Amino acid sequence: MATNPNQVTEDGYVQPVVDVPALTRLLDGEHAALRDKVRAALVEHAGLLVDADEMDRDEFRDRVRDAVVEMAGTGLTASHFPTEYGGGGDFGATVAAFETTAFGDLSALVKIGVQFGLFGGAVLNLGTKRHHDAHLADIAAGRLLGCFAMTETGHGSNVQAIGTTATYDVATGEFVIETPDDSARKDYIGNAARHGTMAAVFAQLVVGGPDGQPQNHGVHCLLVPIRDEAGEPMPGVRIRDCGHKMGLNGVDNGRLWFDGVRVPREALLNRFADVSADGVYSSEIESANRRFFTMLGTLVMGRVSVAGAGISASKVALTVATRYADRRRQFTTDDDQPELLLLDYGQHQRRLFPLLARTYALHFAQDGLRRHFDDVFSGRATSEQVRRDLESKAAGIKALGTWHATRTIQECREACGGAGYLTANRFTALKADTDVFTTFEGDNHVLLQLVAKGLLTDYSSEFGDMSQFELVKFVAGMAVDQVVERTMAHRLIERLRDVLPGDDKWNQESGLLDPTYHLDMLRFREEHMVAGAAKRLKRGIDAGLPAGEVFSRVQDHVIATANAHVERLMLESFIAVFATLPHGDNRVALGLLCDLFALTTIEADRGWFMEHNRLTGNRSKAITREINDLCRKLRPLAVDLVDAFGIPDELLRAEELLTWQ
Amino acid sequence: MATNPNQVTEDGYVQPVVDVPALTRLLDGEHAALRDKVRAALVEHAGLLVDADEMDRDEFRDRVRDAVVEMAGTGLTASHFPTEYGGGGDFGATVAAFETTAFGDLSALVKIGVQFGLFGGAVLNLGTKRHHDAHLADIAAGRLLGCFAMTETGHGSNVQAIGTTATYDVATGEFVIETPDDSARKDYIGNAARHGTMAAVFAQLVVGGPDGQPQNHGVHCLLVPIRDEAGEPMPGVRIRDCGHKMGLNGVDNGRLWFDGVRVPREALLNRFADVSADGVYSSEIESANRRFFTMLGTLVMGRVSVAGAGISASKVALTVATRYADRRRQFTTDDDQPELLLLDYGQHQRRLFPLLARTYALHFAQDGLRRHFDDVFSGRATSEQVRRDLESKAAGIKALGTWHATRTIQECREACGGAGYLTANRFTALKADTDVFTTFEGDNHVLLQLVAKGLLTDYSSEFGDMSQFELVKFVAGMAVDQVVERTMAHRLIERLRDVLPGDDKWNQESGLLDPTYHLDMLRFREEHMVAGAAKRLKRGIDAGLPAGEVFSRVQDHVIATANAHVERLMLESFIAVFATLPHGDNRVALGLLCDLFALTTIEADRGWFMEHNRLTGNRSKAITREINDLCRKLRPLAVDLVDAFGIPDELLRAEELLTWQ
Repeated sequence: MATNPNQVTEDGYVQPVVDVPALTRLLDGEHAALRDKVRAALVEHAGLLVDADEMDRDEFRDRVRDAVVEMAGTGLTASHFPTEYGGGGDFGATVAAFETTAFGDLSALVKIGVQFGLFGGAVLNLGTKRHHDAHLADIAAGRLLGCFAMTETGHGSNVQAIGTTATYDVATGEFVIETPDDSARKDYIGNAARHGTMAAVFAQLVVGGPDGQPQNHGVHCLLVPIRDEAGEPMPGVRIRDCGHKMGLNGVDNGRLWFDGVRVPREALLNRFADVSADGVYSSEIESANRRFFTMLGTLVMGRVSVAGAGISASKVALTVATRYADRRRQFTTDDDQPELLLLDYGQHQRRLFPLLARTYALHFAQDGLRRHFDDVFSGRATSEQVRRDLESKAAGIKALGTWHATRTIQECREACGGAGYLTANRFTALKADTDVFTTFEGDNHVLLQLVAKGLLTDYSSEFGDMSQFELVKFVAGMAVDQVVERTMAHRLIERLRDVLPGDDKWNQESGLLDPTYHLDMLRFREEHMVAGAAKRLKRGIDAGLPAGEVFSRVQDHVIATANAHVERLMLESFIAVFATLPHGDNRVALGLLCDLFALTTIEADRGWFMEHNRLTGNRSKAITREINDLCRKLRPLAVDLVDAFGIPDELLRAEELLTWQ
Repeated sequence: MATNPNQVTEDGYVQPVVDVPALTRLLDGEHAALRDKVRAALVEHAGLLVDADEMDRDEFRDRVRDAVVEMAGTGLTASHFPTEYGGGGDFGATVAAFETTAFGDLSALVKIGVQFGLFGGAVLNLGTKRHHDAHLADIAAGRLLGCFAMTETGHGSNVQAIGTTATYDVATGEFVIETPDDSARKDYIGNAARHGTMAAVFAQLVVGGPDGQPQNHGVHCLLVPIRDEAGEPMPGVRIRDCGHKMGLNGVDNGRLWFDGVRVPREALLNRFADVSADGVYSSEIESANRRFFTMLGTLVMGRVSVAGAGISASKVALTVATRYADRRRQFTTDDDQPELLLLDYGQHQRRLFPLLARTYALHFAQDGLRRHFDDVFSGRATSEQVRRDLESKAAGIKALGTWHATRTIQECREACGGAGYLTANRFTALKADTDVFTTFEGDNHVLLQLVAKGLLTDYSSEFGDMSQFELVKFVAGMAVDQVVERTMAHRLIERLRDVLPGDDKWNQESGLLDPTYHLDMLRFREEHMVAGAAKRLKRGIDAGLPAGEVFSRVQDHVIATANAHVERLMLESFIAVFATLPHGDNRVALGLLCDLFALTTIEADRGWFMEHNRLTGNRSKAITREINDLCRKLRPLAVDLVDAFGIPDELLRAEELLTWQ
């Protein structure tokens, strides 16, 4: 739907007319053709959205499997595999396809993620040619369905502490996989309950040392067949269904126990470490911690993918709620007049538009993340720092992107009233299916600690005398073993102090829409928070308090720091895209969204900015007024701005919301 | 679980030991015995929680109906009916029982609400003796199941604009009920799809005037049989199932169309208006608007009840998440030490304890609301002002209580990680079932506008020249017709200005835990917001802008005002209860919670307080520090504080979360 030709308001503002196809092209970016192929495939499988409610669980699981295998046949799911195994050697394409696939049924999406991203990714990234030759082609085609068996009931976030063991038996040349107790059972494992025949099992690798004593070399991954051709569990493997879940019931999550299951030595995915036939452990990476995080780092695609999925799900919710609000009327001031459209209410704009602006910001940040990921995995970028930045960025955007999905879907559902509660409209599935995004592929709070770890590590060379290892280990909830570099933190803060004088020097409204101002504000916040968190941690350690106690007291500050960092990244991404746009109405429209994102981000934390003398009360109030003004300007563009997401109508599943009169 | 004997911390703070049974008695209040009866009944029906997942939809609906009818037999569901019809003449008791029933399966709860509160309440409050004699005993016993057919697809919030008509046919002495188009079909109607045999139908009452011209007297309610004894729809009645919903699938919501359905003149619930056999309309209430709101006002029990249900559901979620966090460990600083309990992490305390404190605040506010409701409906309080205050309070606590439920359940689910996503644990049902609470029985935003309407009406006599009717009508999205009284608003603000000097006079931390300070802060915010919203509305009207435009621009301010008002009420309730407690450890524990509620409420809006010079940056930071300190003090008490809610273990349905090692 195009808006009316440009109109000039009384204060001289010229209302832009959005070119929706051009905006869709911008959003689709370098993978536009691929995304259109995915859209077509999703429309073909749109029936999944209804089947999810109408089929019984096992029937729907099989239906989802069939759809996934069919999509695998079209080459949309394993582009990251090498061409010789049926892929395209293109990591970015897989993520782009995944992002777009998230417009459709999310069980199918997550099944794709489990099969090609997690299981396939483990074989690809942790295995070597023998594993690739044996399995990748079958995995790519969906002939071999597998599990990613990392999480245990007792340990989800703290993977280093899992209990499953793989002990090398030199006599037979086999590993013996053992689940020592119920807290070490593998839990919530996709493809385990019904379809998987093999699992990439993470276990503590135990090998006899030179003195004959068994030695634990930490967590490694092995391929373990879990079902025979008849679908029966292999000897020693116990499988239980996780049963019904809040959502994603097309994915067959299950539990796995291993009772002395034997696999050949070659089952070890040995890219980073190996065990010789006579029981000698070797690895090119000497430090056990570094080895662990190197292995884990190769699995970052899961986080990159879920981040994109959360953003896409938000787009679906916003499309339905915005279109509905542009046709639903309720109440009037004047009985002779028709009732007002919901979207003409200021509060309704306030509910939806900041979420829309943040969705765009996340979209552009995700674009950057996906390209960054592609650079690293294609081998174009090789430095340790670039790889580490990728992990931090993936963790941060995954956390903020999935929380954004939870919040946006909830707000949109409420904005659609009672109709939003009916399963015939899509919010039921959107809410239930995305709910787990905030805690799987890394709990969001733990992920933000990982982001903060990076910031603090970079910063911590300031403290010559502090117990850095202990501190940073705890911040991330995990050990680190990496080069420490000094950031420009302090210098930047000094610079910002000049750019952003405190108190009453800001009492004029000018500059509120200046992206430099926005960015300086978010940079100042981030740098100040990093420095403050580091100081508080150091003070606690210096005072001799136990590390756990110190960390517990500063934890909210640490997490706020990571949040500030990611929001700054998001704004930078948005501004960078905006700067490349040709002059025209779409640029104007995106400028409004970018301003709205920046100002609502500042407004949401205006208490902090005032506490730190970066905002006066008057300027803070001016920001709120400006936001309301931006919302009014966006009102006539809103439907176009959601239509530009390019979500096929067949996937909205909101017939009652969007068609009745 | 009792905490350890009192311990004294280094700064002299004596850690209290919570007397859990005594705290439960305080929370249960005057209805303790009744609540225990409900608890026992819920335990008996605990199987519903599992059946909700395992039965198919119609089977589960019948199961829920049977449970509800069984509970009706024990007298727990219709205490508000007169004793001669099987009730106890006790309105407060019905609400108290409903609050406690919300610990159990929420389909059963909502079915009870539909049957005894909405349908039964319409017959009781809008009907007269002929209706009572004919139906109340059958309704109380669950022999006659009925619907409350108010909402239409096209009109949920704006009930005055519904399209269904009831036209009096003087020739036959009947009303003819007509659904003019699909937007006027009755929608989301509980008991309609399967079990209801009668409906209380809201319709525009059309009666021939003295000139013979049909005249619309506005919305009235009539009893219409919708199914015969064989369960078939009555002639002219079309029924369709709303199908699957996000949650509450034990309630058979449906749609109703009426095609010239005829009911006798006596079917009109005629407490407030009647039509004579020869077609003369009469009512003791002259104004159509006042009549409408009087009728609606009698139905306030629904909002009072849902408010309580939201608070109870929050308690269930907090009980599971808190107990889980007190046994679940993850990560350690020191490999020789056991991993830390989640509840020992500062951020985890920050996530759960402010929600716990707000739950207690809401609980005490709800106690006040329920007593207020009982005073009015028992006839002990009769003034128009008391009745109007009740409606405002019910609207406000319903809005904040149900939003609190959505937020709390979400946070608790995330705090339980992947296990929280399994249906075997209770979050799936809690989330899905409570989701609609924010939009049914009045959309929360519309309800807050209703609250604001009252505040602004009281305030608006300040403006002799303003178009008050137009303004206030729009604020509430509905017309008003009531006495305007002047509050002490301006005088209070003056007083508060003295008590709360701005800027640097507040740079000392003393007084942060003074309840007078907390209350003055929340009062100042409320009064300042009311005055500001009124001024902005007046300015817009004076400038000649259309009322819709003016309202749209000020709407976010108006809603924030209502929110501030309700939070002030909550704090007052909490402080009032605290003041009555005997000295002792429970008083100390509740004092910590009350302080935490007050300070987190101020912290959440600290931007506003700083903008208005009621808080300096330093004091604001001190509040944050104080909150973290309160969280640490509450840590050892947290499990006791949730156990005091007295939720039977059988209802937690979180075996995996709370029992595995």
